Amino acid sequence: RTYRIASIPGDGIGVEVIEQTVKVLRTMEDLFGSFTLDIDMLDWSSDRYLEKGEYIPADAWPKLRASDAILFGAVGSPDVPDDISLWDLILPLRKKLNQYINLRPIRILPGVSSPLRSCTSSDLDWMIVRENSEGEYAGQGGTTHDDTAQTIATEVAIFTRLGIERTMRFAFDIARDRPRKKLTMVTKSNAQRHGMVLWDKIFYEVAKEYPDVETDKMLVDAMTVRMVLKPQTLDTIVATNLHGDILSDLAAALAGSIGVAASSNLDPTRQNPSMFEPIHGSAPDIAGQGIANPIGTFWSAAEMLRWLGEEGAADLLMKAMETVTASGTKTRDVGGTCNLAQVTEAVIAELEQL
Amino acid sequence: RTYRIASIPGDGIGVEVIEQTVKVLRTMEDLFGSFTLDIDMLDWSSDRYLEKGEYIPADAWPKLRASDAILFGAVGSPDVPDDISLWDLILPLRKKLNQYINLRPIRILPGVSSPLRSCTSSDLDWMIVRENSEGEYAGQGGTTHDDTAQTIATEVAIFTRLGIERTMRFAFDIARDRPRKKLTMVTKSNAQRHGMVLWDKIFYEVAKEYPDVETDKMLVDAMTVRMVLKPQTLDTIVATNLHGDILSDLAAALAGSIGVAASSNLDPTRQNPSMFEPIHGSAPDIAGQGIANPIGTFWSAAEMLRWLGEEGAADLLMKAMETVTASGTKTRDVGGTCNLAQVTEAVIAELEQL
Ligand SMILES: CC(C)[C@H](C(=O)O)[C@@H](O)C(=O)O
Ligand SMILES: CC(C)[C@H](C(=O)O)[C@@H](O)C(=O)O
Repeated sequence: RTYRIASIPGDGIGVEVIEQTVKVLRTMEDLFGSFTLDIDMLDWSSDRYLEKGEYIPADAWPKLRASDAILFGAVGSPDVPDDISLWDLILPLRKKLNQYINLRPIRILPGVSSPLRSCTSSDLDWMIVRENSEGEYAGQGGTTHDDTAQTIATEVAIFTRLGIERTMRFAFDIARDRPRKKLTMVTKSNAQRHGMVLWDKIFYEVAKEYPDVETDKMLVDAMTVRMVLKPQTLDTIVATNLHGDILSDLAAALAGSIGVAASSNLDPTRQNPSMFEPIHGSAPDIAGQGIANPIGTFWSAAEMLRWLGEEGAADLLMKAMETVTASGTKTRDVGGTCNLAQVTEAVIAELEQL
Repeated sequence: RTYRIASIPGDGIGVEVIEQTVKVLRTMEDLFGSFTLDIDMLDWSSDRYLEKGEYIPADAWPKLRASDAILFGAVGSPDVPDDISLWDLILPLRKKLNQYINLRPIRILPGVSSPLRSCTSSDLDWMIVRENSEGEYAGQGGTTHDDTAQTIATEVAIFTRLGIERTMRFAFDIARDRPRKKLTMVTKSNAQRHGMVLWDKIFYEVAKEYPDVETDKMLVDAMTVRMVLKPQTLDTIVATNLHGDILSDLAAALAGSIGVAASSNLDPTRQNPSMFEPIHGSAPDIAGQGIANPIGTFWSAAEMLRWLGEEGAADLLMKAMETVTASGTKTRDVGGTCNLAQVTEAVIAELEQL
């Protein structure tokens, strides 16, 4: 089989980690022989924006939609305001391609240690299901009385039954397939009494269809406390776009580093390509130094292979990656001394041996 | 001097910690002799709501406004939906009394240890300034197409120049008075481009008036990572109502326990009484067992004394409290074996010796 992969390295360390990930994918292709990756490298970056005034070429959508998956690096540049780079690149991709789930597995990889004093890898094994299409990222709101002493600005979060229900069903399906079968739902419905209350209500409705899944409900503030003090009590987590964003960064830090965490932007209907990207950003402070951690992108690529149906390849990549982290071939963010090329070479060597 | 204190124990462990705090305050009164506390105990609880259909009696406001300070326990009961208990008790107090700042000092107290592996008390000493009157807690939004498949609900966050500016000035004043003179501002202006962008803009405007304060800007998701992995790089923090809520719970957990953290709801204009409360909630799971940690409320009472101008008394109470935590007389949440009465007795004994 041939898979058409659109690859968008983006900015900063995004370019570096994608370059290494493509090397790893090429190795897998050779090793397996059963699939081919037709990788289209797209230069949709902040440099392109500064030159041409756009990230995504207007005529690019049909071809993008026809691809089987998207492999994304990172976006963000000191030369372009963040709200432009996001709303012109990553957010339209997620929204227009109906990638309504952002799935973030969080585990402590072998050889990586949690900053928490008494937290071992068996204490922290979470799957975060983040709503990825609406809520606090709806983009609505505005400003009135601009440039006066009375300026008022709003941010309007929009929640729909459709958007919530499909997220809940997805989360319950995930929870049901995990050994602990436990789903924790997060909102702030004590302070926010409209959309958040709808979220709570639909959670309890959908829960009735999944009597085998154990459920509980947390307020987002208290959830951070539980993640820090009682990580072992959590399993699958479902949260809104903003809460999921915040909690998954926190989770990645508690699992050792934001550099190793992966995320999948999924259209579960499979009518559009899904997109796979590390959780970390473009990190302008370390870009170009070759020291970024490629593991988060390797993990994302493994999830991409899994989504495409190449379970065997996905498992092998995870195994190689974990053998390498366990061996101590690690970048600085996780306590090692290696650069990104060394980590990549080690993973490739491991793949070739497995 | 006589200070009129309105005390609202509220629900659950709120009642227990306020009872102990009043004992401590009475001891201070006796010891100092220079001030009297005229404490009015108000039974504005969920029990009262269940009986009479209201938390705050309609005619209570004038008397409340005439008090010098409010000492609050906690609100929340399994028998009343959270959104009702909050919007009928704690939120109207904060809003109608113009308590537009929620100030949350976070430190690792002597004898308490951080769940973070390598974080000592000198690594974590933060002052969180949370906007407390608007933003995501504006209470606006609604639901349309209710009970249909097309239900849409919104949450409208409202930010005003007035509300942001006064918060920024307060935060810069606080930062300027701290040894490190550093202020970190938190938003999510990359994804939320209206209110959050106004927040950023006003931050930079006000910063010009405080050239002696070092500033930086963080996105809320990345901020959680920094709090966990580089706590020592932070000092004063300013954030919106929701972000401040989330970050201060996380901060309290990282400093050891939510049970020791204090908060001050301030009207800096002093036209209304300010309100002092522990960060923790009513904790129905441990209520009535006498095991709650009273330290968060003692600390809040110390901040109340400081706000009233009784600096000496505030310092003494902090000292007694810290001597006690250092000595190991602690409740379970911070690794001790004592109950709340024992902690209180120890603090009183310490006060009497100092
Ligand atoms: C870059 C930004 C828009 C993004 C988000 O907020 O979703 C990032 O933080 C993430 O978590 O993928
Ligand atoms: C009880 C609740 C309304 C409150 C808040 O969200 O502000 C609490 O979490 C706090 O931090 O004081």
